[in-house]
Amino acid sequence: MKGNVVVGQSGGPTAVINSSVAGVYAAAKKLGVNKVYGMVHGIEGFLQDKICDLDEYLADETGIELLKRTPSAFLGSCRFKMPKIEGHEDVYEKIFEIMEKHDIECLFYCGGNDSMDTVKMLSDYAAAHGKNQRFVGVPKTVDNDLPITDHCPGYGSAAKYIATSMKEIIRDNSSFGVQKPTVCIVEIMGRNAGWLTAAAALSRGSDCEGPDAIYLPERVFDMDAFMEKVKELAAKKSSVVIAVSEGVQIADGRFVCELGREVAVDAFGHKQMSGTAVILAQKVAEETGLKTRAIEFSTLQRAATHIASLTDINEAFQVGHDAVVAANEGKTGMMITLDRNGDDPYQCGTSAYDIHAIANVERKVPDEWITADGTDLTDDFEKYGRPLIMGELMPLYVNGTPRHLVRK
Amino acid sequence: MKGNVVVGQSGGPTAVINSSVAGVYAAAKKLGVNKVYGMVHGIEGFLQDKICDLDEYLADETGIELLKRTPSAFLGSCRFKMPKIEGHEDVYEKIFEIMEKHDIECLFYCGGNDSMDTVKMLSDYAAAHGKNQRFVGVPKTVDNDLPITDHCPGYGSAAKYIATSMKEIIRDNSSFGVQKPTVCIVEIMGRNAGWLTAAAALSRGSDCEGPDAIYLPERVFDMDAFMEKVKELAAKKSSVVIAVSEGVQIADGRFVCELGREVAVDAFGHKQMSGTAVILAQKVAEETGLKTRAIEFSTLQRAATHIASLTDINEAFQVGHDAVVAANEGKTGMMITLDRNGDDPYQCGTSAYDIHAIANVERKVPDEWITADGTDLTDDFEKYGRPLIMGELMPLYVNGTPRHLVRK
Repeated sequence: MKGNVVVGQSGGPTAVINSSVAGVYAAAKKLGVNKVYGMVHGIEGFLQDKICDLDEYLADETGIELLKRTPSAFLGSCRFKMPKIEGHEDVYEKIFEIMEKHDIECLFYCGGNDSMDTVKMLSDYAAAHGKNQRFVGVPKTVDNDLPITDHCPGYGSAAKYIATSMKEIIRDNSSFGVQKPTVCIVEIMGRNAGWLTAAAALSRGSDCEGPDAIYLPERVFDMDAFMEKVKELAAKKSSVVIAVSEGVQIADGRFVCELGREVAVDAFGHKQMSGTAVILAQKVAEETGLKTRAIEFSTLQRAATHIASLTDINEAFQVGHDAVVAANEGKTGMMITLDRNGDDPYQCGTSAYDIHAIANVERKVPDEWITADGTDLTDDFEKYGRPLIMGELMPLYVNGTPRHLVRK
Repeated sequence: MKGNVVVGQSGGPTAVINSSVAGVYAAAKKLGVNKVYGMVHGIEGFLQDKICDLDEYLADETGIELLKRTPSAFLGSCRFKMPKIEGHEDVYEKIFEIMEKHDIECLFYCGGNDSMDTVKMLSDYAAAHGKNQRFVGVPKTVDNDLPITDHCPGYGSAAKYIATSMKEIIRDNSSFGVQKPTVCIVEIMGRNAGWLTAAAALSRGSDCEGPDAIYLPERVFDMDAFMEKVKELAAKKSSVVIAVSEGVQIADGRFVCELGREVAVDAFGHKQMSGTAVILAQKVAEETGLKTRAIEFSTLQRAATHIASLTDINEAFQVGHDAVVAANEGKTGMMITLDRNGDDPYQCGTSAYDIHAIANVERKVPDEWITADGTDLTDDFEKYGRPLIMGELMPLYVNGTPRHLVRK
């Protein structure tokens, strides 16, 4: 590769999105690339020519190791949708102009569905206008909802956080065994796809029975059936812990979290911010008189690099690395996919796939991986998910907390 | 020591309460004690003669190492207040009867203020009735509110979880720099004492500026001043993160979390379970139009043994160990205290202290450790808290999650 390259981060951050930047940097330097630039706040910042030189942070190998241990978008992220080409040629021309100014030959973009759309649009524009620059997508999303790829970097670490925290919550909740059970409802991210919520099942093992029920957004949420299930569990157990996706919807299409919000709007004249778990815990308390607790993992599940999956960190690095390799082979308009070759022992390779089949497509948990009553996952999910949370990378602890790499 | 011993756990669980059980077991076995029993669900279970033989779990040293890495009360906890002696002699006689039945010479009880009251009552009863059994308290509380002792086992690990999670939340929240800031309110445990909330300040370092404001329950919460502070921060920063105790109260004595609850009772006729952070985030959203996010650490902050402080684990072990040593020396009606001898390098010893000065007394964050405007901690707190979160003990990861020791 003769020219320079640039890498950007886009969309919601993950625990390992920075490992992909490290992978891009490492591969580019191996290929003799002179400058590896980072977009500051993704394509939105790039349009304002906001870039940094990654040599400043990563030339020393300890920088790469620290970057792998740093959560959230090191380069800064954005939520910027490329406008359609027709009538907005100026936006596209501006991007190519900035690329040419810095002699940038290849652009790598780490992100999910929306971000892959940016890669698609830019490569489409280049093809239509005879531009030689190349564009390769680097998959990243805790939601794990990109198609074609077996899974998405970012998911394994979020799943490891969820499985570990569920174990800890289940132990905590079962501490008091003499009294009536506390019903603990744990809300997990994933508005449309239940991959993250499904990861609650990975808390199971010989030392943990796992959550008592798991509700994914792939199935309609039946409030009566839920309440029956809770009562049944509470009658025979000294602790009840339930995992629920923030995106569960009742039959008429309303989100469960909207049920509270609607009532609140009537009463106070403004939006209430209670989540799904709070609403459900409140309903259980009202109907059963049991003590309840609502827990939301919130952004912790996507930011907890201190308990990231080593498999995930390595794969995030690999897809960044292989995006550069693909671009060096002349590929463009592609995303790197993870291709599983075996479950036990787990093996996974990569390839480059046409971005048009990926951008804006959302993949949900297969229906056959959800049990008939819709409250648990089958062994197929266990086989799929377990390898993705394996392995640990010890943070570098300084003064008692994990050290992060910070952009100046 | 000729007889056997028993150890119990009481009150809210912590990440390291089991390390104290390990310490009791190890010391007793060194002294040649035959049987080390565990109360199943504290004094409440003990009254029903529910005990287990710890040899079954800890005779193999890997059991001790696993126990140190297991959150929540391994033996099961309880919230049982001993009745006053007069008129309830039968309850006390029952306890001594069970002790005699199992040839138990010493009873060790791990807990906070209420649990130390149990130790006091039992030792008082023994003294008044010429009983020879001995009773020693083992401090344990994430709240860190026991007097006399420099700090309480359980606090350091909760503080490490809070400091680490705050760093991760702050990084996550600052990911999108281009738009208006998201105001993130993080609610931390501690209804009366602000020790846990103060630990948010320990997220600070050369790689993290820490939360933008910290509100402890030791100071009256002024809603107008809070809102002014938020607006001021939002005007100059691209990310605002605020730590707040669940126990903050406004001038008339109402908890902030009751403000929402009251309204909810008026509107729906039932209690609402929203927390302090949700209420504050809602008020900020209404007044400023900014995007807000409410996060509660909930039980995770007391159960996250996967990121426990090694200092805390070792000290929890030490106080359990030294309780046995004290009892072996004939002491009773005492609690083991941690006595700090130096901050940097940190040094800490133990001693045994009269339980009457400890039971039912609550210690708050000293006023002079809180800044004048009540929104931050001084360097004195940093000096105090930092050593308590130092060091890590790697969990034993099995199939991607930390392995716990479980009672059969």
